[in-house]
Amino acid sequence: MTDTTLVLTAHPGDFVWRAAGAIALAVSRGQRAVIGCMSFGERGESASLWRKGYNLEQVKATRREEAAHAAKVLGAEIRFFDANDYPLVETPELLQGLIDLYREVQPTVVLTHAPADPYNGDHPFAHHIALKARVLAQAPGVEGPGEVIGAPPVFCFEPHQPEQCGFVPDVLLDITDVWDRKREAMQILAAQKHLHTYYTDLGARRGLQAARNSGPNLGLPNDTKAEAFMRMYPQVTRELS
Amino acid sequence: MTDTTLVLTAHPGDFVWRAAGAIALAVSRGQRAVIGCMSFGERGESASLWRKGYNLEQVKATRREEAAHAAKVLGAEIRFFDANDYPLVETPELLQGLIDLYREVQPTVVLTHAPADPYNGDHPFAHHIALKARVLAQAPGVEGPGEVIGAPPVFCFEPHQPEQCGFVPDVLLDITDVWDRKREAMQILAAQKHLHTYYTDLGARRGLQAARNSGPNLGLPNDTKAEAFMRMYPQVTRELS
Amino acid sequence: MTDTTLVLTAHPGDFVWRAAGAIALAVSRGQRAVIGCMSFGERGESASLWRKGYNLEQVKATRREEAAHAAKVLGAEIRFFDANDYPLVETPELLQGLIDLYREVQPTVVLTHAPADPYNGDHPFAHHIALKARVLAQAPGVEGPGEVIGAPPVFCFEPHQPEQCGFVPDVLLDITDVWDRKREAMQILAAQKHLHTYYTDLGARRGLQAARNSGPNLGLPNDTKAEAFMRMYPQVTRELS
Amino acid sequence: MTDTTLVLTAHPGDFVWRAAGAIALAVSRGQRAVIGCMSFGERGESASLWRKGYNLEQVKATRREEAAHAAKVLGAEIRFFDANDYPLVETPELLQGLIDLYREVQPTVVLTHAPADPYNGDHPFAHHIALKARVLAQAPGVEGPGEVIGAPPVFCFEPHQPEQCGFVPDVLLDITDVWDRKREAMQILAAQKHLHTYYTDLGARRGLQAARNSGPNLGLPNDTKAEAFMRMYPQVTRELS
Amino acid sequence: MTDTTLVLTAHPGDFVWRAAGAIALAVSRGQRAVIGCMSFGERGESASLWRKGYNLEQVKATRREEAAHAAKVLGAEIRFFDANDYPLVETPELLQGLIDLYREVQPTVVLTHAPADPYNGDHPFAHHIALKARVLAQAPGVEGPGEVIGAPPVFCFEPHQPEQCGFVPDVLLDITDVWDRKREAMQILAAQKHLHTYYTDLGARRGLQAARNSGPNLGLPNDTKAEAFMRMYPQVTRELS
Amino acid sequence: MTDTTLVLTAHPGDFVWRAAGAIALAVSRGQRAVIGCMSFGERGESASLWRKGYNLEQVKATRREEAAHAAKVLGAEIRFFDANDYPLVETPELLQGLIDLYREVQPTVVLTHAPADPYNGDHPFAHHIALKARVLAQAPGVEGPGEVIGAPPVFCFEPHQPEQCGFVPDVLLDITDVWDRKREAMQILAAQKHLHTYYTDLGARRGLQAARNSGPNLGLPNDTKAEAFMRMYPQVTRELS
Repeated sequence: MTDTTLVLTAHPGDFVWRAAGAIALAVSRGQRAVIGCMSFGERGESASLWRKGYNLEQVKATRREEAAHAAKVLGAEIRFFDANDYPLVETPELLQGLIDLYREVQPTVVLTHAPADPYNGDHPFAHHIALKARVLAQAPGVEGPGEVIGAPPVFCFEPHQPEQCGFVPDVLLDITDVWDRKREAMQILAAQKHLHTYYTDLGARRGLQAARNSGPNLGLPNDTKAEAFMRMYPQVTRELS
Repeated sequence: MTDTTLVLTAHPGDFVWRAAGAIALAVSRGQRAVIGCMSFGERGESASLWRKGYNLEQVKATRREEAAHAAKVLGAEIRFFDANDYPLVETPELLQGLIDLYREVQPTVVLTHAPADPYNGDHPFAHHIALKARVLAQAPGVEGPGEVIGAPPVFCFEPHQPEQCGFVPDVLLDITDVWDRKREAMQILAAQKHLHTYYTDLGARRGLQAARNSGPNLGLPNDTKAEAFMRMYPQVTRELS
Repeated sequence: MTDTTLVLTAHPGDFVWRAAGAIALAVSRGQRAVIGCMSFGERGESASLWRKGYNLEQVKATRREEAAHAAKVLGAEIRFFDANDYPLVETPELLQGLIDLYREVQPTVVLTHAPADPYNGDHPFAHHIALKARVLAQAPGVEGPGEVIGAPPVFCFEPHQPEQCGFVPDVLLDITDVWDRKREAMQILAAQKHLHTYYTDLGARRGLQAARNSGPNLGLPNDTKAEAFMRMYPQVTRELS
Repeated sequence: MTDTTLVLTAHPGDFVWRAAGAIALAVSRGQRAVIGCMSFGERGESASLWRKGYNLEQVKATRREEAAHAAKVLGAEIRFFDANDYPLVETPELLQGLIDLYREVQPTVVLTHAPADPYNGDHPFAHHIALKARVLAQAPGVEGPGEVIGAPPVFCFEPHQPEQCGFVPDVLLDITDVWDRKREAMQILAAQKHLHTYYTDLGARRGLQAARNSGPNLGLPNDTKAEAFMRMYPQVTRELS
Repeated sequence: MTDTTLVLTAHPGDFVWRAAGAIALAVSRGQRAVIGCMSFGERGESASLWRKGYNLEQVKATRREEAAHAAKVLGAEIRFFDANDYPLVETPELLQGLIDLYREVQPTVVLTHAPADPYNGDHPFAHHIALKARVLAQAPGVEGPGEVIGAPPVFCFEPHQPEQCGFVPDVLLDITDVWDRKREAMQILAAQKHLHTYYTDLGARRGLQAARNSGPNLGLPNDTKAEAFMRMYPQVTRELS
Repeated sequence: MTDTTLVLTAHPGDFVWRAAGAIALAVSRGQRAVIGCMSFGERGESASLWRKGYNLEQVKATRREEAAHAAKVLGAEIRFFDANDYPLVETPELLQGLIDLYREVQPTVVLTHAPADPYNGDHPFAHHIALKARVLAQAPGVEGPGEVIGAPPVFCFEPHQPEQCGFVPDVLLDITDVWDRKREAMQILAAQKHLHTYYTDLGARRGLQAARNSGPNLGLPNDTKAEAFMRMYPQVTRELS
């Protein structure tokens, strides 16, 4: 059976800026990656389109297309929940949809938002409903298609202003080998062009930090590219490294 | 070149109760393990010997013998600093001795105490001097034998009353395969017999927790034995799991 | 007037595993104990029954019977809210039901879940609604039967993986005298047999910790049995001890 | 055997402003109270005397007299370590003196400073050496007069700017019955007159807070006087209240 | 364009006890102050009126009158949302009403409750919805009158039992010049007379703390009156002071 | 009297990378800036010089010259304590030297390191001794030249890996107007060339963050340059902004 990375995000931009490296890396190993995108970021993440005079349907269609394109570049599948952003609100449909997705794809790794973000309430919302659905998908008493899931580890990706969000990097993932994929995916997000430089710099900064924290065995060079993640559950392993 | 685990402890008991599994596991993989023991635990950890009427030299000799025996059972080398416990105090000799040991063994993994312990001041002391020496051993300007070291990851082992010490398990290490080694090493510590049951139960409890947190890939059974550790630096990796 | 301990739990198992000692101890002093059980744990805590092929009504009836039996063994009254678990959701009925229960029993002590639990969302839900109802029951402007309540202290009982839940034991309660009651109550929970050993060990471990932290006056022996609790409000007392 | 409260402070003022109520309350119950005062507060707490032109010996003598007088009013014994304040520094003599005092008085309760205070470095120093000496006094292998001590609970008293010191009141002690003793002791501290009103108000404020947090059983009135404390170790008890 | 302070509170009393000084100070500089009051505090803050036998409408009318009077004394405008307190609950109307208010008044400073308060659930509710509405009001895609807003700094005012609410004063605001206004506003709140002395003392205590933390430049005297606030976002400035 | 910024650093590089903007900004306002440099960074910060074969005196002389040059570019005075780095150790001379410097320059603002840094023990050492000396310099009973000092605010500058050091930006200082000075000062530090790009990027990133957090009044543009600081004491102010 194939390993599967499940990425649950509030808006389309999130999986690109914050986790495109992790996604492309998993795909490059022959694994499956599935993105569950709760909204199109139509209200909160599309200011440049509104300023152009687009209406709601046009904004959503544009963002959907971008997101599908970016997912394709990364080699991932994508599902849209169209649950309305700014604010995202819990509905029985969204919760059940997420449970069903967990049951269907049986993820071995889960990526989602960090638990706090005072700049964007949709991000902690997505975190909490993603974790809630994961626990519910584990219980035989909860309805849904397929088998109950196990306990896949959960990694939170880096918010835009990490220190204000209580984000501390627990894991630095070397994404040097797939950096070109991430750059290509970022360039698709025309609505948020001002972030290209920002996230290119961030990849280099987290990479340098990875180099400085990599032990003698891994020994990463200073021009490494990396993404940072925070773990929600203890790491379980057979070797300390 | 061989991977080397360096274990720096305040007293002899510590490496057995808290890290014997990690040591035996590394050795079972053909790696080298070196224990640096700052004292013999002669004042703080040998109440039963004092109550028998032993004098200081007898206490130290007894604890030294036990420690050497336990290290041998685990397949590890051991060095004694004889720096006097209860309280351990920083001296230039101890600090330089630790720097020299880092330079000599070039560790790929470091294990030591957690940063706080309101029940035993020697434990946080050992933590802080172990980390201080590690940073100093990295600098070309600091004297010492051999080459400067890299940046080996540091894992803190579990204190006796973890919640009072701010200890949160970041890593659960599956030590099932070497559990017999740990049990044998524990039985050598005659001065602290009351702890055998305690740490046997702890191995099972952390093992059950490892099972419950192990994702679909690892899928550990409920009778796993484990040790818990806290990371001092972010994990650097090429794969999320 | 009799002292009354009010125990508010998400599921039936919770009051047994986490607070049976505290309940039996209060009863053994001639006090009243009332358990408010928000659900039957039918979806989240009854995997073994679902695996046997029971339907929802059968699962609920079985868990209700077990819970009533366990309460009886402990000498406590029990009320069921049947509010559906996994997930428990706030409804006006549940909230008002809890306010009414506070007003009716006029508790002198309140026990409930801790505020966080990443393994079971019903637990923090129960914590928050239990505390919300307590504050509302204090206000003359809020409707409900009987008199407004005072400010009973609140104790949170220990979650299954305490370190992951931010649980730090503030209070260690010596339950040695009623340990037999707790053991008997645990044995009733046939659906969760795997937890008997776990919570027996936990009682001994918290007991040993109680012994090590008990001052010269209390002087508890090492074979004490104890339960751990976290306070939500400062202790008010006439004597430091 | 009599219960004994041991109070370890950096300067003479501390035991009056922060713990006079707790001391007088213990004494009023027929218990023994012993104050160990590490310095005379000659440099850090005697600005008004220096401004009068006193020399070092005069300052120390004046503060000693005040402190002895205040202790007498409270019914407590007092020992002076004369270890020089601003800054207090660890010496083998001070540490051994504290160990000896623990062994001699065999305290059932210990009061000292809180672990942090960015306005006065002597306070955290006194906290740390007081706790260090307590642990050392417990070990048979550490020399000193009399028997090893047990594990008396430790309460930290309230610093002057509590929020900046991470001080959160765990315990509110009703000192209404001995408030007159505390007021009388405060009036003796002529060198710090500006603090009389401050600590009178604080007694009332903590008293009101005690009233608001006292459950139906204790039911304290709004004009209660109280002192706040922070626990360093879990409370061990036979009854939740 | 005029600077505008927007104050969003759960109940009428809150803006008086906790922020009257900040409001009067802004007004004294010729700025505009607008208070958005989510409820009349009819259930949670009006115990003395209920005890007099008032019905709901009478309680609300009385509190409304008091609040309008107090706002007038401070020179502020006031809007009532009448959203029902104890408990305040999120409704689309309340959320949209707050977004509209942000868009209309274009605040340069926002004041609201702190994020936690275990004694009054309406306070954290008001905090969270006030911050949620602020973020939504910034997005071009969210409907509402007028222009999107910028990023006004947010200051949380002091809760009644600050240490239990995780409140740490980040900012001490010198309100000496408008203290008479605050005192006058407090005297209007007849339903909560017991709080007059409490908040008068608090003003003096925070003032003394301001004096002790004011650098050589500001050099505040000891009889300063102050209010404490906690920042939600980093301060942005052109000068360190 | 002139305002004076006092900058206390462990090594020469620190005041350039972390605070050159704040220094140049103060000087640009006609204020005085004095740098107290505890060591030459000869062991910990000069790896490239050791690798060239320099001896200790040569390393120190080179770093001293660089530091003096950089200070001059920024318009600041500089004092060297030559207290030996890696590790910096508290001596009576260093402590008294710092007290004397505080008394002499009577700072209105103090800049120093943050309290924690697991990558460089000299940084927290410098933090703690800088704050200790500040408190001692305030006391009339402590000897030293000149008058006692007041209570200047303390700002901690940003460490290299901020999240690992518990660093959260409380203050973002707009240094756009003096960015050229900072760039010029950075270029002088030949021994640490690899950091030029890093700190140039950091200035832009903190600047963008300043822009996003600046309210409508300040309204900073996206190409702002900024430095981040953490406050050690509450801000005291006469206006919220």
